[in-house]
Order: sequence, then structure tokens, then C-alpha cells
Amino acid sequence: MFKECLENVRRCMPLIHNITNYVTVNDVANVILACGGSPIMSDETEDVEDITSLCGGLNINIGTLHKTSIEGMFRAGRRANELGHPVVLDPVGAGASALRTDTALSLMSELRLSAVRGNISEIRTLAEGRGNTKGVDADISDAVTESTLDEAVAFVKTFARNAGCIIAVTGAIDLVSDGTVCYVIRNGRPEMGKITGTGCQLSGVMTAYLAANPDRRLEAAAAAVCMMGVAGETGWSRMRNGDGNATYRNRIIDAVYNMTGDELEKGAKYELR
Amino acid sequence: MFKECLENVRRCMPLIHNITNYVTVNDVANVILACGGSPIMSDETEDVEDITSLCGGLNINIGTLHKTSIEGMFRAGRRANELGHPVVLDPVGAGASALRTDTALSLMSELRLSAVRGNISEIRTLAEGRGNTKGVDADISDAVTESTLDEAVAFVKTFARNAGCIIAVTGAIDLVSDGTVCYVIRNGRPEMGKITGTGCQLSGVMTAYLAANPDRRLEAAAAAVCMMGVAGETGWSRMRNGDGNATYRNRIIDAVYNMTGDELEKGAKYELR
Amino acid sequence: MFKECLENVRRCMPLIHNITNYVTVNDVANVILACGGSPIMSDETEDVEDITSLCGGLNINIGTLHKTSIEGMFRAGRRANELGHPVVLDPVGAGASALRTDTALSLMSELRLSAVRGNISEIRTLAEGRGNTKGVDADISDAVTESTLDEAVAFVKTFARNAGCIIAVTGAIDLVSDGTVCYVIRNGRPEMGKITGTGCQLSGVMTAYLAANPDRRLEAAAAAVCMMGVAGETGWSRMRNGDGNATYRNRIIDAVYNMTGDELEKGAKYELR
Repeated sequence: MFKECLENVRRCMPLIHNITNYVTVNDVANVILACGGSPIMSDETEDVEDITSLCGGLNINIGTLHKTSIEGMFRAGRRANELGHPVVLDPVGAGASALRTDTALSLMSELRLSAVRGNISEIRTLAEGRGNTKGVDADISDAVTESTLDEAVAFVKTFARNAGCIIAVTGAIDLVSDGTVCYVIRNGRPEMGKITGTGCQLSGVMTAYLAANPDRRLEAAAAAVCMMGVAGETGWSRMRNGDGNATYRNRIIDAVYNMTGDELEKGAKYELR
Repeated sequence: MFKECLENVRRCMPLIHNITNYVTVNDVANVILACGGSPIMSDETEDVEDITSLCGGLNINIGTLHKTSIEGMFRAGRRANELGHPVVLDPVGAGASALRTDTALSLMSELRLSAVRGNISEIRTLAEGRGNTKGVDADISDAVTESTLDEAVAFVKTFARNAGCIIAVTGAIDLVSDGTVCYVIRNGRPEMGKITGTGCQLSGVMTAYLAANPDRRLEAAAAAVCMMGVAGETGWSRMRNGDGNATYRNRIIDAVYNMTGDELEKGAKYELR
Repeated sequence: MFKECLENVRRCMPLIHNITNYVTVNDVANVILACGGSPIMSDETEDVEDITSLCGGLNINIGTLHKTSIEGMFRAGRRANELGHPVVLDPVGAGASALRTDTALSLMSELRLSAVRGNISEIRTLAEGRGNTKGVDADISDAVTESTLDEAVAFVKTFARNAGCIIAVTGAIDLVSDGTVCYVIRNGRPEMGKITGTGCQLSGVMTAYLAANPDRRLEAAAAAVCMMGVAGETGWSRMRNGDGNATYRNRIIDAVYNMTGDELEKGAKYELR
């Protein structure tokens, strides 16, 4: 039940350590608060182990990767692994530069990740060990559509099995798999792509959902994806004439803030494959 | 009169140098503009002395502390001390990591600070020289409530006297003391805790208030605390059905932008102890 | 026709590489999305060449300059020059510190810039090779007004000719020149100065306009300036009682998001000198 996943976050108020990019960090913090968690940001190598030890989950995002913070990602990740905390990787721009691709691949091989969430181009890059992503958005030729869905589900399942963690591919259709089953999710709005950082926000929320639902991680990851999608729909329904992407950004976080378990349960549109 | 403190900021338009975290920096800049000041951000060691020399006050915030910016905090602080500018320290997460605790304590011992503003757990950490803060929020066991108020007032007065600067503890009840008297302030809304960075914003505003009111620093610090609290109340009164923490964030800064001295005077709820 | 410039951005969706400050970076990303482009941020020396190679334009902003990112600015700039991409420099705070002034001057001398956009004090600093800017806002004594306009137009034309690139000075009256002609633009609202980063946003938008309009760069730069000014007017017209600078920030980005070529054409107020 997605409802219980949501309510567990609001009840446990998990503290989430974020090593994230400086573009969308404020929205990530506010959306973690909105969903019921509590964010703390730290990427200094000498700070991260203390911080992650206090937390219930770790969210690693390479959106503005600096060489100086890579070591901190590994240190925090190893500490989180020791403590059994969920670790989520958001491989922003994997495939767009060698540094991003290599760092994401190393994080995947050296840490025990709970989930990797990215767009299809980033995830394909990681699965293939190389890539040619066009920036931070998915390449149109990679897009998951109804006509490519079967292949995409098979790909995500296989990669999740090989990687040994949950793989979440988000886009027009979202796929979340642990290698055995795959949630196919049809929530959200295309206009969410005109806001910077809805993906980063989802990765933060997913970390909170995983931290608060240790016994049902696949379901929790899928619930987080549905929750952001439903929030995107609710936020859109409140848009007025003249509103644009800046207001929409706020409306989505507002919708996360106000969402109840029942609303999530009712709004979630998914099937299992 | 808090009214005069507010009006002095709008008249002097103090330029405030902020060495702050990348999570809430944009809101800090906008709230300083909203209150009548002018913000400039710089944390590069080789840049900070030039920048602080142009300014009227310095706001140091360790929310995303990097080893590379610590030296800049000291350099800027020493320069601000030479120039007689007010220096405010926001010890975000003191107690949550050794690096944060040690850095905050060193800043307190090596610089002449005008004010330290934090939550009760951070301030207790600094007073005791060590701590076990749970992240960036105050620990519930530390909370200043009506039943613990007498002890908390005594603690803040003593620490302010020992530290030789204004201590501002913010939470459900705010305490601002110079060691002699203590403002006990009951403005604000609990929902402000669901927005990232209202504390960081207050530290920025407090620096502007201190810079524009050199002859009444305790009153100016208390006025800044009341002003943010009243803005939280005004902002809340403008919330509509479906609004959440993202919109509330904007409403508070908007309320700071529009606040008059008379509104502050009328809305401020405080007593002196 | 400014209309075509705007429509070319929406049609080409240029990917813009931003090496920018952490204060206003989120708004820069959202406004680039709003105008029809796509932003990517990267300032790590080992990342920037890969990223800029994927993009159509490069926006360099020194608002929170770090020594560690200066080399990245040069590397990205040289790569963009090799590829023939437009490069825009936003010399935030040039004149306020030696590091900022020197870095901006070095970028101008070593890179082939398409445009430099700043306030009049920053631009005068660059023209004179030194300066005494008061922070990140223009000094009042420098302001471009109707009474100083002739001199200012002559100054901007001369500097554009000497620098070999477009110079855009923004303020109450905006000037955009390639050394031959000068657009004198009277769009915008004074309240835009109460929002942090409207200048940074414009530099990002200008880069997108230059990237999508390679055959008419002066016109594209002027169109970007008018577009932001018209958005400031449209956004202001939607302000309600109690709204302030936080809401205004969102309204402006919303207005960029919704602006059509016809609205820009109709709203643009400029003359050529």
C-alpha cells in the first residue's frame, strides 16, 4: 500500500543526508520537508561521515560534480553501508562527460546502492558502461513510450538484476524495478520537464521513502515516484492564467506538502509487469 | 523602538557580506533585499577581504561548511573586526559533526562576534564546547517551552555574558540576550520549521539590522527576530487552500518586503526579562 | 525582428552551459527553460570541456568566484571558441575585488567573447581596467539616465569596438551595442533591482538567444534584454496586494515562460542610436 509508505515517512520523519548539486539543492531540501522528512546537506570530505551517521538515508547526486566532493561521496556511502542506511544515486548527466560517467560507475561498483534514479539516457549509459547523453535531459531517441515499453521494461529489469539494486527510470512513463517485477507508472505531467530539478527532488523524496520503509523498498521507491507524479498533476490543476514554470515549481512542492495517503492511493496510476 | 530599527535598515540600505551555505543562499539574498539591505556573497579566501571592506556587516553561516572556505571566514571576520563591522555567526549543525562544532568554536574564540544566532541545540553545543545535535533542527529534549523558560533565559544570559556577544536562540519561543537583559519573543508560526532556511534568512536580516543600528545592537537583534516572526504570521494569513511550504516561503519574504515600522511595532510580541 | 529571435530559441532549444554563481543558479536554470533553452551547469575543470562540447553556448558568471573554478572558465571558453559557440561573460562585482576585476579582464583578453553583460559600474571597471564598484549593484554616480545618455551611448559603443564584442549595460535604461549601433532600451521595472539575480538570469537568456540566432547576434542580444524587461512589466502587472520580491521573482520567470513573439514585438521599447 502506497498509503502506508507515505504515512511512514510522515511518522518517522527520516533525516536525509544529501550530497547534491547547487542548482536544485534548495528545492530538494524543501521537498524533503514537504514529504515529511528532514534534510541535511554536507559534501565536505571531513564532515560527511559524522553527518551521515546521524541520518537515516543518503542521497548522492552528481549534478554539479566537483573532484573535491567525490571522495566525500564514497566516504559517506561506505558509512551509510556500514549502518545499513539506504543509499540513492542520481547520476545527473552520466554520459555527458567522462567524469560524470566514470564517477557514477565507480559509485555503483564500490557502494551497495539501494536505488539508482535517472532518466533513460543516464540509466542506459550506466548499463552499457559508456554513453553519449545530450546534457541533463533524456535523448529523444531513448524515450520510453508505449511502443518501446516492452523492451524498456525488460532492459530495466535486467539492469536492476545485474546491478543488484532498484532501478528507477523516470520520464513520460516511469519504470521502477528490483529485477523481478517492474512498476510501470503513468503519473505526472510533461510540463514538469520545464522545471529544473524535479528529478533531483524525486531522488531526495525516494531516499526518505526508502529510509522510512525498510521492509518494502521496491514499493516505497514506486510510491515516491507516484507521489511526485500525483503532485505534478495536483500542482498543474492549480495553475492559473499567466502562471509558468516558476509558479509550477512551487505548486508541486505545495502538493507534496499537502498530500495524504488516501490521495496518493487514489491518484497513483500504475501496473506491475 | 523596533520601528526605528526597521526604518534605519530601509534608509541605510546596508551592504551585507554573506559567507553562507549553498542550500538557502538565494532566499538569504532575497530576504536581505526585502528588508532593505543589499547582499553580496563571497567565500573565496582571496576575495573576501576586498568584499567585506565594501560592506557594512558580515554574516557567517556554516550550513555547508567546506574546509576551503574556513580560512575565508577567519580572514573576512578579522577584516570586519578591524573595520568595526558587526559580525553574525550562524552555527548551522554545530554538534552534528566535529568539523562544524570545532569551526564554530574557533570562530567564536578568534573573532569578536556581535551575535550568534542558532537553535537551542546548536547554542547549547557552543556553550558546552561539545554536543550531539540531531542534524540541523533542534533536539526536542532541548526545546524552549513555557515550562523550561526560566532555565533557558538564565542559560542564554549566562552564555551571552561569557561569550561577550548577543546570543539569539530561535524556536517556538525566541530568546535574545546580551548577558544583562533577555528579550523573550513569541512571534512566528510552527510551520516556519517546514521551510528550509528561515533561520539562515534571519541571520542575514539580523546582520543588516545590526549594521544599520550600531548604537542599539541588542534592540536591533531583537527587532530582526520579531520582524521575521511577524512576517511568518503575515505570510501565513495569506495562505490559501492547497498552498504549502514552497508558497509559504515566498509569502514570508513578501511580508518582509512590505513590512512597515508601524506593523512591526504593532505585531511584535515580547517581554524583557 | 525580435519576434523571430524569440521563436528561434523556442524552436532550437539550445543547450546552454553555465559556469555561474551558487546564489542565483536555480533561477538562471529555470529562466533558461522558460525562454525555450535547456540549461546545464558544470564548473569542475575536468568536466567543463566535455559539457561545453555538447552545448550551443557558454555563460560565464563570476558572482561567487572561486579560484578553483577560474581554470574551468578558461578551458570551457577556449573549447567554446574552437567550436564557434557564443560565449557571454557576466562580470558580477568587477571592481568590487581585485580577484573579480582581474579575472574578468583576463577572460576578456584571452577568450573571444560574444557579449559582456553587466551593470554600468562593472562595465566601466572593465573599460578602464580598474574600478571601485560598490558591491554587486551599480554605483548611483554611474547611473545611465536621460541626462547622461549621450555620453553613455558613446562610451558603450567605443568599448564594444575596442573589446570586439557586444557590450550590454543594463539598468534603468539598457544599452546594447556592437560598436557600430546602440540599442537604447526602456523596458523593465525598477522593482527588478529588489530581486537577486535578474541580471544573472538575463545573461543566461542572452546566451540562449545568441546560440539560436547566430546570424544576427546584436539583434538577438537586444531581443533578450527587451524580453526580460517586458517580462518584468508583465510580471509586475500580475502582482497582488501583499506580494513582494519573492513572488515578483516567480512572476517574471512565469512571464518569460508564457511570452510569445508577438508580445515581445509589441512590448519592446527601444530606439537605435
